[in-house]
Amino acid sequence: MLAFEEKEYRERIRRARARMAAENLDLLLCSNPANMCYLTGYDGWSFYVHQLVMLTANDGDDPVWVGRAMDANAAKVTTFLPHDNIIAYSDDYVQSKTKHPLEFVAGLIRERGMERVKIGVEMDTFYFPARSLLSLQRALPNAEVVDATTLVPWVKVVKSSAELEYMRRAARICEKAMYTAVDSIVEGTRQCDAAAEIFRAQISGTDEFGGDYTAIVPMLPTGEGTNTPHLTWNDGPFRNGEASIIEIAGCYRRYHSPMARTVQLGKPPQRLADAAKVVVEGLENAMAAARPGATAEEVEQAWRSTIERHGIRKESRIGYSTGLNYPPDWGEGTISLRPGDQTELQENMCIHMIPGIWQDDWGVEISECIQITPSGGQPFAEFERGLIVK
Amino acid sequence: MLAFEEKEYRERIRRARARMAAENLDLLLCSNPANMCYLTGYDGWSFYVHQLVMLTANDGDDPVWVGRAMDANAAKVTTFLPHDNIIAYSDDYVQSKTKHPLEFVAGLIRERGMERVKIGVEMDTFYFPARSLLSLQRALPNAEVVDATTLVPWVKVVKSSAELEYMRRAARICEKAMYTAVDSIVEGTRQCDAAAEIFRAQISGTDEFGGDYTAIVPMLPTGEGTNTPHLTWNDGPFRNGEASIIEIAGCYRRYHSPMARTVQLGKPPQRLADAAKVVVEGLENAMAAARPGATAEEVEQAWRSTIERHGIRKESRIGYSTGLNYPPDWGEGTISLRPGDQTELQENMCIHMIPGIWQDDWGVEISECIQITPSGGQPFAEFERGLIVK
Repeated sequence: MLAFEEKEYRERIRRARARMAAENLDLLLCSNPANMCYLTGYDGWSFYVHQLVMLTANDGDDPVWVGRAMDANAAKVTTFLPHDNIIAYSDDYVQSKTKHPLEFVAGLIRERGMERVKIGVEMDTFYFPARSLLSLQRALPNAEVVDATTLVPWVKVVKSSAELEYMRRAARICEKAMYTAVDSIVEGTRQCDAAAEIFRAQISGTDEFGGDYTAIVPMLPTGEGTNTPHLTWNDGPFRNGEASIIEIAGCYRRYHSPMARTVQLGKPPQRLADAAKVVVEGLENAMAAARPGATAEEVEQAWRSTIERHGIRKESRIGYSTGLNYPPDWGEGTISLRPGDQTELQENMCIHMIPGIWQDDWGVEISECIQITPSGGQPFAEFERGLIVK
Repeated sequence: MLAFEEKEYRERIRRARARMAAENLDLLLCSNPANMCYLTGYDGWSFYVHQLVMLTANDGDDPVWVGRAMDANAAKVTTFLPHDNIIAYSDDYVQSKTKHPLEFVAGLIRERGMERVKIGVEMDTFYFPARSLLSLQRALPNAEVVDATTLVPWVKVVKSSAELEYMRRAARICEKAMYTAVDSIVEGTRQCDAAAEIFRAQISGTDEFGGDYTAIVPMLPTGEGTNTPHLTWNDGPFRNGEASIIEIAGCYRRYHSPMARTVQLGKPPQRLADAAKVVVEGLENAMAAARPGATAEEVEQAWRSTIERHGIRKESRIGYSTGLNYPPDWGEGTISLRPGDQTELQENMCIHMIPGIWQDDWGVEISECIQITPSGGQPFAEFERGLIVK
């Protein structure tokens, strides 16, 4: 059930260790489920309890998975780790008032004689809450605990050829789900029924390969709700004269290829039709600028200068790195296409370029998930790019 | 779009303030999306960036929503808050290397003259990572920041009549999705296609009301994978002779009614058939014991003594409080049915009672979501309780 050959995981671990060495880390604790999966293959919906992967700086050590007892079998099935490296805590650590799983982890660190080393933890990851830090520091007062939130995400940011193949499969699923979405948005149909068809298409996938759950559920703001991006659906019907924004992804073995489109039922207001054209023009200019060596802020500037010519302003970032992820986000938390981000793009980075515009009572989103190539950003999916009028 | 009448939210806030008073809290910061929704109605998939609700101890103050600029319109649509109480930070706070949204929150606290007060934060919530605490403490060195992870969850634990109606609707959706699941598990069918039909049923809901996304995706371990509960699906076919565990929920406006069943294709091994009977017997005995005034551990004891008579041991908890929730968990993090939990059950608490058994290469789960009533735990859903053999 491993998603990749073991040597691919070994290469990821080697690159993570190179970054650990640059920061003098003796030990890395990855609690972000995407980073756990990236380094070991671990894949289960068990991240609602504490779990992590321990990676020492020592090349001879395999990573150690630490989690809840009932999930240890899932680690045996989904990772390449020797079973001795799968270590479970007992169930009374779960949501306990008196003990915390990071105390158990501290015990493992002490057993390995590492109670005085420099430890990287993912301090701004949603899977490392404040109490994890406090428990670890209390149990290991002589360790130096530092932030390594983006260490593995920066290793993840350039995709291998095997990963790119998964991104392409995700894009096939995304295309299918987007066709389904556009077909399902019909006057009088309940929003929930359209969302249901989208989910079905995402999970069923194609005849050749099935889909995985996406790290974000379908976003489906409709009517006035299109003035904000992160509303889902309700029981109400689609209405003639209203627009809906669809932001979805296809997911294949945790790899995401996201896409947004805007659908209008009936004649679109002129401002929406005009804005959609500007968004496409800006998006395409930014995609063309997304070459190896360009910085994230230069790519954003290509968008910004396009829309400024049309008198439109937008303050939020227009894209971010994506790929392997788990809820609540398919973004990787590394590159943001915005002023001040001077990351140099490299070939085979994958970016969701999503220059949405949200006004007081309307909005528009048209996005592409792109691969950075010498000839610019190449979209993974193929889908009519523009306002879709039905 | 409010899910409940404003007076219901006012009553929740009143009860949260009573708990704040008992702990001498001047200010509560809720970053758990379920708690944000419970107190204000806020509902959007925006919890992949930092956001929270500020609640002062002062009865005259409405809660304040703080989040990302693009999500402020969602807060205006989904909450009862006056628009002045919806405060947005600029997009450059998102996943920034140099600034953190909790610094922005600290600024709001300082503006209100509260920089020296006692502040409760949700330290063991996945939506309050370590860096949130460090940023807050650095920005407000004279505040006393204490843990309030379970403050609102303990307010949530007894459901109102309006909430119970939502739980019942969620159960209708769950029944439909479970029928769909059982129908879809057929020899030769791909697991992903069965999962796709389950999702569709969950989201489409019933003819009267649509479904919402569940806080946990369908769990569908199959074959040997049934030795662990939190595997999802893959592209492989269901095979004759194998069992599958289905753990799903129906969700109505964020309220969950979960259920697990085990389906066997073909003749079940005797050990599985026997274990399923024991699980049902133990589950029913525990349900009967789940009366107001019984403690959580007494209910577990009813299960434990049943299975011990049959020579089965199980170390993990057999249930937890459920209701309003967001990914990654539909549990509330309060009551656990296990030894040592002396919580006295009260009428209209809602518990997912899930006494799964996982062995080396097989397992069984049969669960019910129950309402605590004077005559014992009453299941919200109605569905054949036992091993389902096809």
